[in-house]
Amino acid sequence: MLRIGRFGRPMDPAASEFISSMQADVRLFKPVVQINMAHALMLAERRVISKSDVKAILRALRDLYDRGVKALDMRPELEDIHMAIEEFVIAAAGEEVGGKLHTAKSRNDQVATAIRMTLRREILEVQTTLIKLINSLTALAAKHTKTIMPGYTHLQVAQPTTFAHYLMAYAWAFARDLNRLMQAYDQTNWCAMGACALAGTSFPIDPARVARLLGFERVMDNAMDAVGSRDFAVQTISALAILMTNLSRLAEELVLWSSAEFDMIAIPDKFAATSSIMPQKKNPVVAEIARAKVGRLTGDLSGTLATLRALPQSYSLDLQELTPLVWDAVDQTKSSVGMMSKLIGTIQPKADVMRTRAEDSFAAATELADTLVREAGPSFRAAHTVVGKMIARAIKEGKTPSALTLDNLQAACRAVLRREIPLSEQKFKAAWDLGKCVGVRKSLGGPAPASVKRQITQLQKLVRKRENLVRVRAKVIKKAEGKLLREARRRSI
Amino acid sequence: MLRIGRFGRPMDPAASEFISSMQADVRLFKPVVQINMAHALMLAERRVISKSDVKAILRALRDLYDRGVKALDMRPELEDIHMAIEEFVIAAAGEEVGGKLHTAKSRNDQVATAIRMTLRREILEVQTTLIKLINSLTALAAKHTKTIMPGYTHLQVAQPTTFAHYLMAYAWAFARDLNRLMQAYDQTNWCAMGACALAGTSFPIDPARVARLLGFERVMDNAMDAVGSRDFAVQTISALAILMTNLSRLAEELVLWSSAEFDMIAIPDKFAATSSIMPQKKNPVVAEIARAKVGRLTGDLSGTLATLRALPQSYSLDLQELTPLVWDAVDQTKSSVGMMSKLIGTIQPKADVMRTRAEDSFAAATELADTLVREAGPSFRAAHTVVGKMIARAIKEGKTPSALTLDNLQAACRAVLRREIPLSEQKFKAAWDLGKCVGVRKSLGGPAPASVKRQITQLQKLVRKRENLVRVRAKVIKKAEGKLLREARRRSI
Amino acid sequence: MLRIGRFGRPMDPAASEFISSMQADVRLFKPVVQINMAHALMLAERRVISKSDVKAILRALRDLYDRGVKALDMRPELEDIHMAIEEFVIAAAGEEVGGKLHTAKSRNDQVATAIRMTLRREILEVQTTLIKLINSLTALAAKHTKTIMPGYTHLQVAQPTTFAHYLMAYAWAFARDLNRLMQAYDQTNWCAMGACALAGTSFPIDPARVARLLGFERVMDNAMDAVGSRDFAVQTISALAILMTNLSRLAEELVLWSSAEFDMIAIPDKFAATSSIMPQKKNPVVAEIARAKVGRLTGDLSGTLATLRALPQSYSLDLQELTPLVWDAVDQTKSSVGMMSKLIGTIQPKADVMRTRAEDSFAAATELADTLVREAGPSFRAAHTVVGKMIARAIKEGKTPSALTLDNLQAACRAVLRREIPLSEQKFKAAWDLGKCVGVRKSLGGPAPASVKRQITQLQKLVRKRENLVRVRAKVIKKAEGKLLREARRRSI
Amino acid sequence: MLRIGRFGRPMDPAASEFISSMQADVRLFKPVVQINMAHALMLAERRVISKSDVKAILRALRDLYDRGVKALDMRPELEDIHMAIEEFVIAAAGEEVGGKLHTAKSRNDQVATAIRMTLRREILEVQTTLIKLINSLTALAAKHTKTIMPGYTHLQVAQPTTFAHYLMAYAWAFARDLNRLMQAYDQTNWCAMGACALAGTSFPIDPARVARLLGFERVMDNAMDAVGSRDFAVQTISALAILMTNLSRLAEELVLWSSAEFDMIAIPDKFAATSSIMPQKKNPVVAEIARAKVGRLTGDLSGTLATLRALPQSYSLDLQELTPLVWDAVDQTKSSVGMMSKLIGTIQPKADVMRTRAEDSFAAATELADTLVREAGPSFRAAHTVVGKMIARAIKEGKTPSALTLDNLQAACRAVLRREIPLSEQKFKAAWDLGKCVGVRKSLGGPAPASVKRQITQLQKLVRKRENLVRVRAKVIKKAEGKLLREARRRSI
Repeated sequence: MLRIGRFGRPMDPAASEFISSMQADVRLFKPVVQINMAHALMLAERRVISKSDVKAILRALRDLYDRGVKALDMRPELEDIHMAIEEFVIAAAGEEVGGKLHTAKSRNDQVATAIRMTLRREILEVQTTLIKLINSLTALAAKHTKTIMPGYTHLQVAQPTTFAHYLMAYAWAFARDLNRLMQAYDQTNWCAMGACALAGTSFPIDPARVARLLGFERVMDNAMDAVGSRDFAVQTISALAILMTNLSRLAEELVLWSSAEFDMIAIPDKFAATSSIMPQKKNPVVAEIARAKVGRLTGDLSGTLATLRALPQSYSLDLQELTPLVWDAVDQTKSSVGMMSKLIGTIQPKADVMRTRAEDSFAAATELADTLVREAGPSFRAAHTVVGKMIARAIKEGKTPSALTLDNLQAACRAVLRREIPLSEQKFKAAWDLGKCVGVRKSLGGPAPASVKRQITQLQKLVRKRENLVRVRAKVIKKAEGKLLREARRRSI
Repeated sequence: MLRIGRFGRPMDPAASEFISSMQADVRLFKPVVQINMAHALMLAERRVISKSDVKAILRALRDLYDRGVKALDMRPELEDIHMAIEEFVIAAAGEEVGGKLHTAKSRNDQVATAIRMTLRREILEVQTTLIKLINSLTALAAKHTKTIMPGYTHLQVAQPTTFAHYLMAYAWAFARDLNRLMQAYDQTNWCAMGACALAGTSFPIDPARVARLLGFERVMDNAMDAVGSRDFAVQTISALAILMTNLSRLAEELVLWSSAEFDMIAIPDKFAATSSIMPQKKNPVVAEIARAKVGRLTGDLSGTLATLRALPQSYSLDLQELTPLVWDAVDQTKSSVGMMSKLIGTIQPKADVMRTRAEDSFAAATELADTLVREAGPSFRAAHTVVGKMIARAIKEGKTPSALTLDNLQAACRAVLRREIPLSEQKFKAAWDLGKCVGVRKSLGGPAPASVKRQITQLQKLVRKRENLVRVRAKVIKKAEGKLLREARRRSI
Repeated sequence: MLRIGRFGRPMDPAASEFISSMQADVRLFKPVVQINMAHALMLAERRVISKSDVKAILRALRDLYDRGVKALDMRPELEDIHMAIEEFVIAAAGEEVGGKLHTAKSRNDQVATAIRMTLRREILEVQTTLIKLINSLTALAAKHTKTIMPGYTHLQVAQPTTFAHYLMAYAWAFARDLNRLMQAYDQTNWCAMGACALAGTSFPIDPARVARLLGFERVMDNAMDAVGSRDFAVQTISALAILMTNLSRLAEELVLWSSAEFDMIAIPDKFAATSSIMPQKKNPVVAEIARAKVGRLTGDLSGTLATLRALPQSYSLDLQELTPLVWDAVDQTKSSVGMMSKLIGTIQPKADVMRTRAEDSFAAATELADTLVREAGPSFRAAHTVVGKMIARAIKEGKTPSALTLDNLQAACRAVLRREIPLSEQKFKAAWDLGKCVGVRKSLGGPAPASVKRQITQLQKLVRKRENLVRVRAKVIKKAEGKLLREARRRSI
Repeated sequence: MLRIGRFGRPMDPAASEFISSMQADVRLFKPVVQINMAHALMLAERRVISKSDVKAILRALRDLYDRGVKALDMRPELEDIHMAIEEFVIAAAGEEVGGKLHTAKSRNDQVATAIRMTLRREILEVQTTLIKLINSLTALAAKHTKTIMPGYTHLQVAQPTTFAHYLMAYAWAFARDLNRLMQAYDQTNWCAMGACALAGTSFPIDPARVARLLGFERVMDNAMDAVGSRDFAVQTISALAILMTNLSRLAEELVLWSSAEFDMIAIPDKFAATSSIMPQKKNPVVAEIARAKVGRLTGDLSGTLATLRALPQSYSLDLQELTPLVWDAVDQTKSSVGMMSKLIGTIQPKADVMRTRAEDSFAAATELADTLVREAGPSFRAAHTVVGKMIARAIKEGKTPSALTLDNLQAACRAVLRREIPLSEQKFKAAWDLGKCVGVRKSLGGPAPASVKRQITQLQKLVRKRENLVRVRAKVIKKAEGKLLREARRRSI
């Protein structure tokens, strides 16, 4: 019907299909119906449409809402879900009455609002899933504050640390992701209704009322900006992409740690797959997929930026191409975070192997250099050279750390400092004791069990606060939704 | 069944779904069945499996091929289409016999080969569609070698040219895209079968025979490389992405030219949409979507690169995440090129407006400067300054090009050169004659009608050559396919 | 010196150059010296180093600070600026004393902290520049709340609006960018010192004290996370990239509007360039470059994401490759925003042309349909069809909007509604009056002058608040810096 | 001077700097001078400029060429190197004569041509470096065709293979990169001169002659396309990006293999770095940086695609922003490939560890299953289950492969097949012998020493062919260059 006045003829079918967003729009079904309800209610309140017309419209919308998206005619010729819903209402309420629904609104403000409604919900869901993952990490960490393992830099054993310290490094990063998603939500939860095509309307509408009915926190300030901007979506995708880089790093550790060479964790059979040809294989497939998904998010993000480049105000159909990338980013992230949360809850660390690996490498070398500084006075740089020399020789001679004696250290001292240093055998051995070595690293953020326990408590507190906010926000939406549906029912009978 | 030996228990259902590629694999159905047929035939020829076993296997495979993908059990628990097909064969031929099909092959070499088979077909289809677009452009250009229009640089009118010259600029770019796709095909059309998991096999197989049965040009040289590399896919996506930048530029021109301000072409109603609120609107929606799709391709490409980053040999499940990006790139490109080809075939250039726009701007200024150089001897740089000065003054005084006289030029000469120059009124006017101005630009690649006609002829010749190659390649595949199916039937009865 | 103990031999010179970050590190010079000062002061306070040793160290550091980066030996063999500074201190204070500076710290925590210090300053500078741009936009908007111009969607004239309405659409978007930068700052302004290599230290250090001396708001909670995370940088780049999409859109409008075809603004000569060959050209080069830069930001962002993909904890040298992308993003944005702010301050809108373009198109069609609804009762959808039909015929007959009469409308009514509607000639004409048409669009965010003035006031208030915050933050840094230098001087004499 | 006619006033200094490409243009100095020489020679031959004028111009150009880029005035006000060179010639030869140099050319065709000339050289250099890397790989492989190591999939030990097999997997991938670069060269080596601004010229020029003088293989066919297209550059960057994904994968292996956990290679001290705090560290820094660089290439590529998106014909200044990304891609690749080539030449594989790792895992499981199939008749799928079961139990009981006996296998047979199978102890043991296991994998692309030796020979042959082509191409350029300079000298005296 839309085309009839201006063109008189239908669109080329292939073109219809090419430009139609119908398929992706299914996701927007509920929000678009709700927007139409809120809009109709407001039009009635402002007396732009008569009560009886609104009654018929709301009856149709309620009916559609109950029957679901399947009730719609979704042929691409109708272009998008906005037109499909309008057609439904017209079919139900008649052209005369149904045709009034589109007064003082446009697809431009409607689609922006519907994307925002869908996305805010998705953000809350990602946050909820992410909180589960953080909780899995802190729960596991709480059990392993004394589980010594090698800490790596450059994938080389660096210093002894604990499994809990490692897990908490990721937990803190995810807490910041939680924060970024909260900020993305803040930006998303603005209502665009009232902007119409790009320049508002001369009808005496009440955008703030529509926003309240739809559970929004505020309305957009400029109509052109309301229909033409998608920065809230790009901000959300970028928050998700950053989260997925963190997730891919954790996934990479699981792949590494579960290799025969590292052998520091076991992945339960139910999260592993075997090979179609190699019967011995146990592949960490969940972690692999979780690791890979960040590639997709990188694509979604650079795709949206490229789409927005140099697009003039206000609405161009290019914006339609951006939306599927948003949903892809949300879906990939949600499933990946959810799976990793399950996986983390079941991995079995092999504490003995972890400790042995730390002991067999020279992880305590820094502590020995620190001991030299504290006990025997050379500068840290000199102590670093001494210990480096001792280890280089040990490696050349095939000696393990446990085979090293004070004599070896003194030999290195003579070579580097041209003198021996006053250090007891006991202090020398103490520096090699990984438990002690970790225990003394109480500095803020260090791996000492007490320090990590403090981290766990603090993070859990922070996460509970965020969880509360997520719950409150979900409740606000739910309440508005309930109220809207009741209102729509009340006015439709 | 695959897991039974190694694990004894099924995978977590959510994990199954997360790692399953089943949905995307539908696209690989036919190739995977064909690979299994070719593999079974070869195993029989090399006496790795008995003739009677192969008969039962081929019967099952033929049956499956005829019934199509719907005959398969596609639950995610089966992980992927490779296992689903094996299960089908086992169900049909019995465990004893059906279990032999996977001898001397792996999912790793099978999936690489299936992607290559699917992709080579898609490349040919994109090429066929692209050839249509080029033909649309050259056909339109052939009608408009004398249709004067302004040539732009920096979106400012630069010099007079013709509509044909413009169209041919795009046609040549697309011809290079055709070439890049041909090269991507060359890289794609290699068979990976025989590589098995990553290290070949001790069975006396014949990879070259399998490759021939599947219509490949050659086999991969290294088994590890065969299963672990996807550069053929990235090369294809990048060829498609470059093509889509060219397409987005053409689409942008259509959007610009069909605006009320440029008004140089009309887009037929059947390729335009109106607004839900603004009844006068005629939006160039097809061009907008075609323009936007390059964003998606940019995403697909950066996504694949990020996925491959630092992935150790040979096969990791991350590679599975790359495949949907390949199909997205192919699908988006194919539909966009197809639609643009249709659209180009129907746009209506407004020759009068084009000419007027060229005349009303100072498009011939360069020709005037050139004339000064030729006729009156100042250096080009001096002539450039003279003409620039004359035009600056004309603009200040609100004069159009047609209002300018030799006097105005001489005034500028006096100001710049401190002298007048010997130039006849006639030569002065001739420089402003856009038809002449274009006609004399016969230099290679210039807009003179004869020069553009030559371009058209040359390009058409080149495209016909490419078209031939595409046809030959499609025929080779088709022939191999027919032969394989006949062979499979012959051996299954 | 660093390598002597462990290796005994220098690095391959080409390798040194390949892995050295020296060149990019120049940017970190001041922060790294300050970190060393703060660290030394803290070590003295905690009695890890004697007062006299610290005195010598601080004297060297103060001297270096005063002489600047040129005083350093920057050969790539020294790997990075951290080692270059340590070498300087050792040369000045002797190996015995200078070698103590690196006690209880590592390059890993130092470089993370230095990047954060540099970046927080850059964020404030970008914000300051962005505030100028917003102010340029609102100032220009304030002058043009009644300057009628066509509002576009799909680059087709949509509805009448004002130049101010357009400018404010961008201003609001930039205000959100300001917000995102504020959030990026929040995440950046955390201190990583105390983390050492990845596992803290056994020396009794005071990370909170160091953080305060360096003007940070808080310290990182986990040492491994402190050295291994760069999400603050990716968050900043993504905020900048989003800002640059907005800027590129504004730049695109300037390119469009300054074309001969749109001709709605003039760009002053001093921001335009001519052609080396076409003397009449006036190219909007500043806007073109500003438009293009978002490509670079897209690259910086996808580059950083790809770099972080699957990087295991904690520090890998890959992180070093991320840093230049951060500075590129900052530099490109800062200069682009600065230039656009200057340019916006000088563009000359051509109010007459703007109005004529709006009048000559059918921009008021929606208002006419609204009028029909209000005055004569058909549904909006029916009114939309009527007006669409009237305009389609007008275009076919070559009629401009001003030539249309009530008769034309009634003809369309008869065709669509099968009846005429009761509408006075006066109401019909009023709908075509663009001034009125804009004036009545008072709905929130609409173009009515009063509505836009309200927008301007609100935005200016918001921006002033942000500006204050920026100023306060800059002051905090400056104050901490002053105090640190005084303290360092006091302790060094 | 350029601006004088049209504007009369200079550009805003900040704007000049913002839009100037001067800094990046240094790289184009020689090509631009050569283009000017070739153009001047051609103009003289076609009698567009007199011999004496050309003599003075060529004298200035030769002088400039000899003195180098430092002789130029490079202030941003001159916009770019093209104007700087013209200014130099005018200063040397006088306005009258020097001003003639720009006859029948434009910066648009000149910059496109200069980028192509610089890039073709860079491609050849990257190819030369890449050939060195391939040669390093094949040379190392030739020494290790019998060095058994575990082959991995999913980073889990999969099947036994050899170090040579691994190295060759990368060598073959790089050979394809060589091919892609050859194709990029083919596309790059086209001359754009004669296109002028976008529409050719009316002067009787000879573009083919200029192309020959500059060593090009052909000329562009359409003037607009010649100045407006950069697909040759994007194609080159994408070839480089794909190459860098391959390189990052190889680098990742080196990082993994040199970790204490894998411990399969030693990286020589001169290519490793230690830690500023941990004296025992030996970090594989060269491999880390080489791994990271692909992030940068991903950025360069998505940046260029975003820049080209929706850019109308023909030249817009946005194209200028693309060029630095091309050079960055080239530089990063060249240095990374060069370093990796050096590194590969020096790594020391630890054959004993490699073999032990392969033996201690169940790498031979597939071979055992294959043996079952061959010797005792169950289907591969059943054999797969049997062996999987046996290994699952062995792992549960902590047994290593060498501890397994035929009894263990028969137990699994009973459990799975409900019967024992006829297999000799000898055949059972033979399946576990890794040397035999590898030796029998002679299938195309497999790891059997003979098979890999064949690979090495074939690849070396292929690479020599490519090397020859690179050499021939370099010679063609050099010869043209020499001839051009001689010709320029001859005509300038």
